[in-house]
Amino acid sequence: MSEQKYRTERDTFGDLQVPADRYWGAQTQRSLQNFDIGGPTERLPPPLIKAFGVLKKAASVVNVSYGMDPKVGEAIQKAADDVISGKLIDHFPLVVYQTGSGTQSNMNANEVISNRAIEILGGQLGSKKPVHPNDHVNMSQSSNDTFPTVMHVAAVLEIRQNLIPALTELRDALDAKAKAFENIIKIGRTHLQDATPLTLGQEFSGYVQQLSNGIARVQDTLPRLSLLAQGGTAVGTGLNTKRGFDVKIAEEISKITGIEFKTAPNKFEALASHDALVEAHGALNVVAVSLMKIANDIRYLGSGPRCGLGELSLPENEPGSSIMPGKVNPTQCEAITMVAAQVMGNNTTVTIAGSNGQFELNVFKPVIIKNVLQSIRLLADASRSFTKNCVVGIQANEKRINTLLNESLMLATILNSHMGYDNVAKCAKKAHKEGTTLKEATVALGFLTPEEFDEKVRPELMLYPDEA
Amino acid sequence: MSEQKYRTERDTFGDLQVPADRYWGAQTQRSLQNFDIGGPTERLPPPLIKAFGVLKKAASVVNVSYGMDPKVGEAIQKAADDVISGKLIDHFPLVVYQTGSGTQSNMNANEVISNRAIEILGGQLGSKKPVHPNDHVNMSQSSNDTFPTVMHVAAVLEIRQNLIPALTELRDALDAKAKAFENIIKIGRTHLQDATPLTLGQEFSGYVQQLSNGIARVQDTLPRLSLLAQGGTAVGTGLNTKRGFDVKIAEEISKITGIEFKTAPNKFEALASHDALVEAHGALNVVAVSLMKIANDIRYLGSGPRCGLGELSLPENEPGSSIMPGKVNPTQCEAITMVAAQVMGNNTTVTIAGSNGQFELNVFKPVIIKNVLQSIRLLADASRSFTKNCVVGIQANEKRINTLLNESLMLATILNSHMGYDNVAKCAKKAHKEGTTLKEATVALGFLTPEEFDEKVRPELMLYPDEA
Amino acid sequence: MSEQKYRTERDTFGDLQVPADRYWGAQTQRSLQNFDIGGPTERLPPPLIKAFGVLKKAASVVNVSYGMDPKVGEAIQKAADDVISGKLIDHFPLVVYQTGSGTQSNMNANEVISNRAIEILGGQLGSKKPVHPNDHVNMSQSSNDTFPTVMHVAAVLEIRQNLIPALTELRDALDAKAKAFENIIKIGRTHLQDATPLTLGQEFSGYVQQLSNGIARVQDTLPRLSLLAQGGTAVGTGLNTKRGFDVKIAEEISKITGIEFKTAPNKFEALASHDALVEAHGALNVVAVSLMKIANDIRYLGSGPRCGLGELSLPENEPGSSIMPGKVNPTQCEAITMVAAQVMGNNTTVTIAGSNGQFELNVFKPVIIKNVLQSIRLLADASRSFTKNCVVGIQANEKRINTLLNESLMLATILNSHMGYDNVAKCAKKAHKEGTTLKEATVALGFLTPEEFDEKVRPELMLYPDEA
Amino acid sequence: MSEQKYRTERDTFGDLQVPADRYWGAQTQRSLQNFDIGGPTERLPPPLIKAFGVLKKAASVVNVSYGMDPKVGEAIQKAADDVISGKLIDHFPLVVYQTGSGTQSNMNANEVISNRAIEILGGQLGSKKPVHPNDHVNMSQSSNDTFPTVMHVAAVLEIRQNLIPALTELRDALDAKAKAFENIIKIGRTHLQDATPLTLGQEFSGYVQQLSNGIARVQDTLPRLSLLAQGGTAVGTGLNTKRGFDVKIAEEISKITGIEFKTAPNKFEALASHDALVEAHGALNVVAVSLMKIANDIRYLGSGPRCGLGELSLPENEPGSSIMPGKVNPTQCEAITMVAAQVMGNNTTVTIAGSNGQFELNVFKPVIIKNVLQSIRLLADASRSFTKNCVVGIQANEKRINTLLNESLMLATILNSHMGYDNVAKCAKKAHKEGTTLKEATVALGFLTPEEFDEKVRPELMLYPDEA
Repeated sequence: MSEQKYRTERDTFGDLQVPADRYWGAQTQRSLQNFDIGGPTERLPPPLIKAFGVLKKAASVVNVSYGMDPKVGEAIQKAADDVISGKLIDHFPLVVYQTGSGTQSNMNANEVISNRAIEILGGQLGSKKPVHPNDHVNMSQSSNDTFPTVMHVAAVLEIRQNLIPALTELRDALDAKAKAFENIIKIGRTHLQDATPLTLGQEFSGYVQQLSNGIARVQDTLPRLSLLAQGGTAVGTGLNTKRGFDVKIAEEISKITGIEFKTAPNKFEALASHDALVEAHGALNVVAVSLMKIANDIRYLGSGPRCGLGELSLPENEPGSSIMPGKVNPTQCEAITMVAAQVMGNNTTVTIAGSNGQFELNVFKPVIIKNVLQSIRLLADASRSFTKNCVVGIQANEKRINTLLNESLMLATILNSHMGYDNVAKCAKKAHKEGTTLKEATVALGFLTPEEFDEKVRPELMLYPDEA
Repeated sequence: MSEQKYRTERDTFGDLQVPADRYWGAQTQRSLQNFDIGGPTERLPPPLIKAFGVLKKAASVVNVSYGMDPKVGEAIQKAADDVISGKLIDHFPLVVYQTGSGTQSNMNANEVISNRAIEILGGQLGSKKPVHPNDHVNMSQSSNDTFPTVMHVAAVLEIRQNLIPALTELRDALDAKAKAFENIIKIGRTHLQDATPLTLGQEFSGYVQQLSNGIARVQDTLPRLSLLAQGGTAVGTGLNTKRGFDVKIAEEISKITGIEFKTAPNKFEALASHDALVEAHGALNVVAVSLMKIANDIRYLGSGPRCGLGELSLPENEPGSSIMPGKVNPTQCEAITMVAAQVMGNNTTVTIAGSNGQFELNVFKPVIIKNVLQSIRLLADASRSFTKNCVVGIQANEKRINTLLNESLMLATILNSHMGYDNVAKCAKKAHKEGTTLKEATVALGFLTPEEFDEKVRPELMLYPDEA
Repeated sequence: MSEQKYRTERDTFGDLQVPADRYWGAQTQRSLQNFDIGGPTERLPPPLIKAFGVLKKAASVVNVSYGMDPKVGEAIQKAADDVISGKLIDHFPLVVYQTGSGTQSNMNANEVISNRAIEILGGQLGSKKPVHPNDHVNMSQSSNDTFPTVMHVAAVLEIRQNLIPALTELRDALDAKAKAFENIIKIGRTHLQDATPLTLGQEFSGYVQQLSNGIARVQDTLPRLSLLAQGGTAVGTGLNTKRGFDVKIAEEISKITGIEFKTAPNKFEALASHDALVEAHGALNVVAVSLMKIANDIRYLGSGPRCGLGELSLPENEPGSSIMPGKVNPTQCEAITMVAAQVMGNNTTVTIAGSNGQFELNVFKPVIIKNVLQSIRLLADASRSFTKNCVVGIQANEKRINTLLNESLMLATILNSHMGYDNVAKCAKKAHKEGTTLKEATVALGFLTPEEFDEKVRPELMLYPDEA
Repeated sequence: MSEQKYRTERDTFGDLQVPADRYWGAQTQRSLQNFDIGGPTERLPPPLIKAFGVLKKAASVVNVSYGMDPKVGEAIQKAADDVISGKLIDHFPLVVYQTGSGTQSNMNANEVISNRAIEILGGQLGSKKPVHPNDHVNMSQSSNDTFPTVMHVAAVLEIRQNLIPALTELRDALDAKAKAFENIIKIGRTHLQDATPLTLGQEFSGYVQQLSNGIARVQDTLPRLSLLAQGGTAVGTGLNTKRGFDVKIAEEISKITGIEFKTAPNKFEALASHDALVEAHGALNVVAVSLMKIANDIRYLGSGPRCGLGELSLPENEPGSSIMPGKVNPTQCEAITMVAAQVMGNNTTVTIAGSNGQFELNVFKPVIIKNVLQSIRLLADASRSFTKNCVVGIQANEKRINTLLNESLMLATILNSHMGYDNVAKCAKKAHKEGTTLKEATVALGFLTPEEFDEKVRPELMLYPDEA
């Protein structure tokens, strides 16, 4: 095992040794040492780091337009590109549980980009020359406006590029099933009890609507999420930045990402609250609620093979039990419902964290964005996995579906308008108590002849309202 | 005490005695006996009962257009008007914790309206003639579509007529303060630590923005919340209703309420899920988060009178302590933050309840709407109370604010662009350690003359970005 | 309608008119006017008011022992007895959303008891003579120690006298079923899929264990919940009370209630935090979790009547549907699962409220105790309703249970030790794919003769571990 | 970059290629491919993997006692030791969001241990000879009892070996401060308003009590958490295991870990519910609530340096702001309060997941244990970090504390028993309105002479109850 080498970095607190093969500087190193909480799995997630690359690149472009040395600016932009590409992800070791403003991660970005830019320009790492982490990379910025900015940029990018496509894929797969199943008539179930029939396609169309609404819900949060705090600097006033910096940087970020961002109309709100992220997570929460319902339905409908409802066959992806041979379980449903439970809990965390802002700053920023990005990723990944490994392979067990339909007593409902509610109830109850068919009971009670019953009680007539 | 008299009512389960002075029938009475859970304070809230009046009136109008006896229809409408007016509220005794579909409350409405209509027409209570609770009042309907319909109608009315006006009032009161305080420069606080200055008006403008956004968030949930399940009947297919009934009843409800409602595009989703209410409560949750932040700020800024921050004076509304004379507490802040905590918990309840739908029906309907309506009412009432009893009376303690501002070291930030970050840090740290002013430290370290310091370090220059 | 009469009451803020037929005074009236939030359903619950009666009676006894005029003391004790009895409940109109310390409810108790005591002694209401609300009824107390004291007293009494008996009743009813069902062998289900058999009694024994554990969990919170803050007065130091007052009053409360309470070892913790109530609600939360699971199982096992699992028949308590005749729904399961959802949300509220204490006082007291007492009552009431209206009437559908058992493939598991896991899996999969019985598949693959199969695969051998 | 080599592994679903340098087999590989959800940061945490090592070792010991080939047993035990040591952590790549029973992680353990044991015995990886993952490593077990067993083992070990020591360290550090500060008299604050005095030591003693209680709360969950499901096999009956296996394996696990575990009295409950973990997380939730309160107090008391309360100085660990020089922030408080918010949200996740068990199995197992272990680790790590980097370095600013104390009006409270509440209130209000001292107002109103005031109003007399 090779010996770790170190170099000296310095901040206002003094000198520190940092690993020679890392671009980070003294403040990052200090945070690593002071916040030994949770280990590597609790690091701030890659989309946030990437957003720092976007921001620092955009800031450099705007700062050059305000007079920063273009050579410095260009080096910063190249270094920022390396951050955006993900190549430097190992140089961002800080965990969620650090300064609540994310200051240390902002400094991590400043330090990595300045050192990488120094390297590009042939300088010496740690020298802060010719690219200073604060004076150049962080120019016209404060942690207090950069961190909320990257929170929004990361969330918007992940929602638009990851979550929405994944949910759309799932919605489309469910819609394909809804269409494929549109002629399969089945028993409905309300209160888990047998109810009037519907088609399996109609049942799935409800799921499709839930997903369509869910996609719309998430999209509806984007306008407020696409507003950026940048330009507010330390407390929202914009001190130490230039007039117009806020508008220009939003434009530049839009250019880099290809997605429209705007400057927040009120920077005090944008630093001191994260209501827009609480709102966005609220939409994720509804998606989780929808997925829980859909996946629960599918696994119950697929329960069996012999002693459950058995209306659906789910794909067999793996052996189900280490002790019960031949058992195949609805594992994709289980995975996505666990994701749903996680997202619902994350909603509580984000709510609590969002409510605890104080004066000019909310200092629960890292835990808010970590939960938002985790929820987005889990929902997206799980939706894709569920689509591919479950939904597309769902098959209807038409024979079983038909058997259940015909055994049901609930076809009686169609007789309400012919016989009145109370009389129909008598027939249904008689059949239930005596274990006979509805037809037998209705005929026995003298309400209808067998022929009348057959003519009136047809499931295919029960799928839509009556003609007016 | 007078002796309670009873009459006999009947349903498919048999006869039951009900209080003679109540319009309800057998099914309501049965629910009362079977669900002795929580007592009167757990009754379904008045706005939901009122919405039942609206719905049953609208249904009767549409049913007459489809051929129901107009005399029966008219009586139903009159009876429904009595429900809408609130006069019959004591005839709706059922609690939240009943059938999860709200069937028993739908029957309660059917029974009360049919008996009241019978009375109007001179018939005998309990006779079901000439107005039958099921065959007439519930005509073309099922509990499974009526209850979700009244959930949406009640929530939309309460949001539009109660919550939005109350939030707007609070927003406007905060905005008036923001304008009144626009020239009061004060110390900013980030991480609870002294930071660069801003005006008290700027600080309040953040609250105004939070409220403006909150109002918009709640309003943005109305389009999906204004879609009605009515017409789906038992499982979403619309069996036993007429084609077009769904569209017509939404129109009729719009006419009665003066607010636009539309029929839901997919009735399966509308019965089996309550995502729209989970979404709406998510917006209420963000409002709660905002209010928690705002009220916390205000009470901390008003803390004292001698040993706190003391920047604001809050109105004195009552004696504060039973043991400490002269103590006045930020009680309105306390009330509204308790409301916020309640709403955040309600969000968890609504989320869990919303996720537990099964097949064609979600059977957590009453607990969902109870929590949504409670959150709306508490937020509305608390906002009005907070506005009237706290916000409008807030006064700025300008002397205290000014003293604190001038003691602060954070005015140093303005020197960053002149002296560089590291040098400025040295001055600030020196002053802090030695208990001197920033000016003394800066001069002592030789960075500036006293005159230069006074010229550069002026709080009024620190409230905005630099000219570009 | 008779005209409302008023009398004048006074506090340090001045005079106020209060209804002549109410015992409350100026501070209560002021709170009523200043906190118009939520209306009567949001009043602090009766068990808390009763606990105030207990406390004020105990305080008076101890104060007399320290020298208070015995005549005054006796009158206070009589008045407090009226509060304990519930007779004066209409004189406690204050809502949850008031001062966060509950000061106004403490004053409400002081005012009502002093006026009632004045009345008993023949004095004039509102005169504060000869019994002063502060100087006598509140003697040696502060709102800051009385309110947490009554929170604990009310919670302990409700848990011991209401919740534990109700949970025990439910546990016993489930246990009776477990015993009644001990010889009914049924298919097991894991992942909702058919699994190896167990008895219905074994299945129910799991529920019994959950309830037994739940009762123990709730009881285990009582030691910390039975510690009282009384004696800490305003900030925990005990200023303005007497040495030993804290111990004596706990003893006196124990005597009055017949339940052992002790003085809290650290009064600073007892005023500034409500961890003991957060802990207690955590136990209620686990009970809710258990009830959700049990009630879900029971309704799924009772699903049908023709198209569900159909293993259990639940009692028919009411007509199930306004449109589907003869439908009977698991309404008690629905009610108790809605209660569970409410309690889980209340847990979030209590958690948030508990975490927001500040310095010497937590000012979310009323919302904490309201949620705790609501959860206790709902769990107790719902458990009793569920027991009486559902559990005791559950019947096993033995025919259906037996049919399902024999169709299952999962009896194969018993062959693992004979044939090895991989071979058994082959048989089970073959039978599943071909729709045959396990026996046919096993014989066809040549692993066993029919006789060997019948000898080895017997469900009654699969209910316990092998003899060692 | 070297070329990845593969070998063939097989399960009942067929052949699969797995990386040649990994011990895992076909079922692990299949899970990796089918559950691409969340990536490496979502892997099941190391303490759970270690617990699998403990379990499989114990099972092997017991199985040998029941007749398994001792040579096979010994190899399994050696391989299991490698798992316990952490050396094989990279061979456990599966994420939380997999089968809800954790079957795939159980198979991962079986496969890794069998292949490692095969290797130890000189066999060929993937041959399943002479150590078969199911027939030997999983002998007498099912995923359904192993996974809940390792959940409990991991949680108990982490609580006892990690969390309790960390909380104790924090409690002791706070207690040291309480003792160091026991003579520093300061103003109390209730409702954030000035209240009667207490010592800083008394204030800290409240935190100490919270932590002491928290430790006790967590410990009180251990008895139920130390009960193991092992021996229940697939559905709780113990089929395919030996009588007494459950007791022996609990004894063996106790021996290996040095901590007492017992077999669960009811295996049906132990598989189908995870109430014991919901309960344990409820205790973690209370700890989070306590830490939120304590850390909030400390950062508010440390707020400043010039414009806050300023009673405490917190250690300076790093530069605080990238724009405001010299700013030092309460970053450790921020980190631990973010941890608290995370834990409170995890409590919601665990609650929801725990409530969703179905019939004989809860299939939210991985997400439950992941959240429990994350909460334990975060609380433990954050407590240690907070202790070391904040609490031990806290200093009291005695000068500031004393200044605030003497400015306060609340010392008036001590005069209540001398002058009566109403008179004292007049003095305090007069001083407040006129900006004078309490003494001046009291004398001006003629209630006391200056000498009498000085004699009576002494803070050091206000820290305890009066002598009786």
